[in-house]
Amino acid sequence: MRMYDLIMKKRNGSALCREEIQYMIEGYTAGRIPDYQMSAMMMAIYFTGMNKDETAALTMAMAHSGDMVDLSAIPGIKVDKHSTGGVGDKTSIALLPMAAACGVRIAKMSGRGLGHTGGTIDKLESFPGFITGMSSEQFTKQVNEIGLAVMGQTADIAPADKKLYALRDVTATVDNMSLIASSIMSKKLASGADAIVLDVKTGSGAFMKKEQDARALAQEMVTLGTLAGRKTIAVVSDMDQPLGNAVGNALEVKEAIATLRGEGPDDFTRLCLTLGTYMLIAGGIVSDEKEAEARLTQAIRDGSALRKLAELVRAQGGNPEAVYDTSLLPGASIVEEIVSSQSGYVSKIDCDEIGMCSLILGGGRETKDSKVDLSVGLVLHKKTGDPVSKGDVLAVIHANDSDRLKAARERFLAAYHFSDTVTDAGPMIKCVVRES
Amino acid sequence: MRMYDLIMKKRNGSALCREEIQYMIEGYTAGRIPDYQMSAMMMAIYFTGMNKDETAALTMAMAHSGDMVDLSAIPGIKVDKHSTGGVGDKTSIALLPMAAACGVRIAKMSGRGLGHTGGTIDKLESFPGFITGMSSEQFTKQVNEIGLAVMGQTADIAPADKKLYALRDVTATVDNMSLIASSIMSKKLASGADAIVLDVKTGSGAFMKKEQDARALAQEMVTLGTLAGRKTIAVVSDMDQPLGNAVGNALEVKEAIATLRGEGPDDFTRLCLTLGTYMLIAGGIVSDEKEAEARLTQAIRDGSALRKLAELVRAQGGNPEAVYDTSLLPGASIVEEIVSSQSGYVSKIDCDEIGMCSLILGGGRETKDSKVDLSVGLVLHKKTGDPVSKGDVLAVIHANDSDRLKAARERFLAAYHFSDTVTDAGPMIKCVVRES
Repeated sequence: MRMYDLIMKKRNGSALCREEIQYMIEGYTAGRIPDYQMSAMMMAIYFTGMNKDETAALTMAMAHSGDMVDLSAIPGIKVDKHSTGGVGDKTSIALLPMAAACGVRIAKMSGRGLGHTGGTIDKLESFPGFITGMSSEQFTKQVNEIGLAVMGQTADIAPADKKLYALRDVTATVDNMSLIASSIMSKKLASGADAIVLDVKTGSGAFMKKEQDARALAQEMVTLGTLAGRKTIAVVSDMDQPLGNAVGNALEVKEAIATLRGEGPDDFTRLCLTLGTYMLIAGGIVSDEKEAEARLTQAIRDGSALRKLAELVRAQGGNPEAVYDTSLLPGASIVEEIVSSQSGYVSKIDCDEIGMCSLILGGGRETKDSKVDLSVGLVLHKKTGDPVSKGDVLAVIHANDSDRLKAARERFLAAYHFSDTVTDAGPMIKCVVRES
Repeated sequence: MRMYDLIMKKRNGSALCREEIQYMIEGYTAGRIPDYQMSAMMMAIYFTGMNKDETAALTMAMAHSGDMVDLSAIPGIKVDKHSTGGVGDKTSIALLPMAAACGVRIAKMSGRGLGHTGGTIDKLESFPGFITGMSSEQFTKQVNEIGLAVMGQTADIAPADKKLYALRDVTATVDNMSLIASSIMSKKLASGADAIVLDVKTGSGAFMKKEQDARALAQEMVTLGTLAGRKTIAVVSDMDQPLGNAVGNALEVKEAIATLRGEGPDDFTRLCLTLGTYMLIAGGIVSDEKEAEARLTQAIRDGSALRKLAELVRAQGGNPEAVYDTSLLPGASIVEEIVSSQSGYVSKIDCDEIGMCSLILGGGRETKDSKVDLSVGLVLHKKTGDPVSKGDVLAVIHANDSDRLKAARERFLAAYHFSDTVTDAGPMIKCVVRES
């Protein structure tokens, strides 16, 4: 078999067979197939596409390119959750304790974020002392004891995907549905969970701008997970404006805690309840959606969800007091209100620009080696559709540097748009895609 | 400017502007743009194409990526000739002396072949002592003295094309009309001639299998040459079976000499007269096609074309006696007839397979470093449409190794196809494409 022939075949519109895709991924991971052939292949795939069988074969080949995590020491159904990402996405911090409090077993391996704010790992490190480095034995033990563990990704998960994604990122071959779906799912399959709940974002702040594309990606991933024998459910949710109100690591943790107290923003609470519903169903806890949501609501009401977060923090070396006293979380030295200079209704918030404000303040990573300032960020007081009077507070900025604050404020103001009539923000949950 | 953005632009179907193409070619030649981005770009071009302006910009950028040969020390119009290549293509050996004998000034830089038989340089080296290494002063002086010089390519001609072609060759991005045309024309433009006559082959033994594609390539190259201010004429000629009868270096030289004596095969003689006609016209010697052909025929008849070949051989250190006594050219130790085991008409000769026979015998290069055996090859006695009786000689093989001979004979026999009815081989000259 020669890579040249495979490029030619794909270029001419034929489907590659499983063996050909395996040959290609193994050869690329091992360095036998050079980047320049793989990038030509990726561009050919961009133009000619991949069918279901090819996408499944690519996903499996990438999943098997490194370690396949074995979670069999944890009895029962282990449920994983993945989000395609967006601005203010603190979902895991609230959702995982909610689901775990209802009995779902969650063994989550998580990465650090590259972008507006940190990833789940960075956010959890807002709890003083919290560590995510642990052995797989500790990991397993913790899930068995408290039903939930979040570990920094140490295993060699889908190295083929890592290498291929880096190549696609510099050759304009990222935006192909099959390639995106196989990239995400190869990592999920290698991470060892029995069931996977996916949060596919759509809107101006999401990778999938169009709802139709997000639905298609959701469907593709559900098909891939199902083919691989994993119960997979995808929720398509709104990312046309930031999720909830807080953007920035510790600020988002505070909002997640508020949500676990039943005091979170409506949109974010709705998302957690919906994703939680499908985690409970995928985890075999309940079979009915109404019953699932009732259990989750009860876990918030009776404090068990919040206690589960405190258990997680304690188990991983953090100070659980911070769950009950959020003044123990990192705080910024400058806190300043941004006031509206006009009246009307918020018609649109440039979602990515709000993310950029957080990045400017130091809350995200511009490169892999950037250090994240956990304390900075923004809390929005007005969202799409809200009425605003001149002088109203639009948001509160948390900063540690007045120059950065100034730059972020300017950018923030340019990201808000107003109109004389009310704009409907649309529903948080667009649709749910399940195995048919 | 970023290569990433250019790939994205081309991928999305937009045209690149001249500055963008220059940036890309300069950056690639200098090694600032990596192979993996360029191969993605080539595949995007394969799918979305390039318009006339882009193709012209690419051609000029590649032509200017190295030396632009200055032939101004040679007065008058310097004419170059290029063939897209095929089996038995000894055209330059006969054509250049014919045209030079009629007054055309030919300063030809030529490469060594990679394929079935050697290139023009290899073939000329069949003349004992012939050298193609010379200074540009010697080169100019010789053209001024005898009207013709053939020099091995020493100048740094279109290095961007060299690098890009090597990349396209391993990424399945060779067969795109704009890329093929710009590759050929960038080298021709850098080589300094004022006028260019192109021989575009079509048929089973040519790169362009379909006549329609060959016409399109011819048109594209004529447009490119004309835009660059060079008089450019393309002849589309048959390569559905080997050209003439001889395949193999010294054997082809013998056939070229026979042709200069007026004793060449009809098809090959027709091709030389046609290409010669347009060299005389492009070179400003005559303006009328009939007049051009009459002069060329006269140069054969009066022996001046053959004498011009002898002059060339003498000027470049070879033994001119070999032009008159071809037993002085390299000869093979084994000469064996291949006899037909059936009767009928030759319906088809697998052209590439005949080329492979020559390669097997040692007459070509499998890799850049292969040494060519100038003496080996085949002389066909039967061509498409010829009647054959059982026992007739189909061809004579010249070999230096009995195992290779055996392998070549088997392959040869499988390449000949017969039928009960006569097949028309079709005309040698398909069409002529000139500036409109």
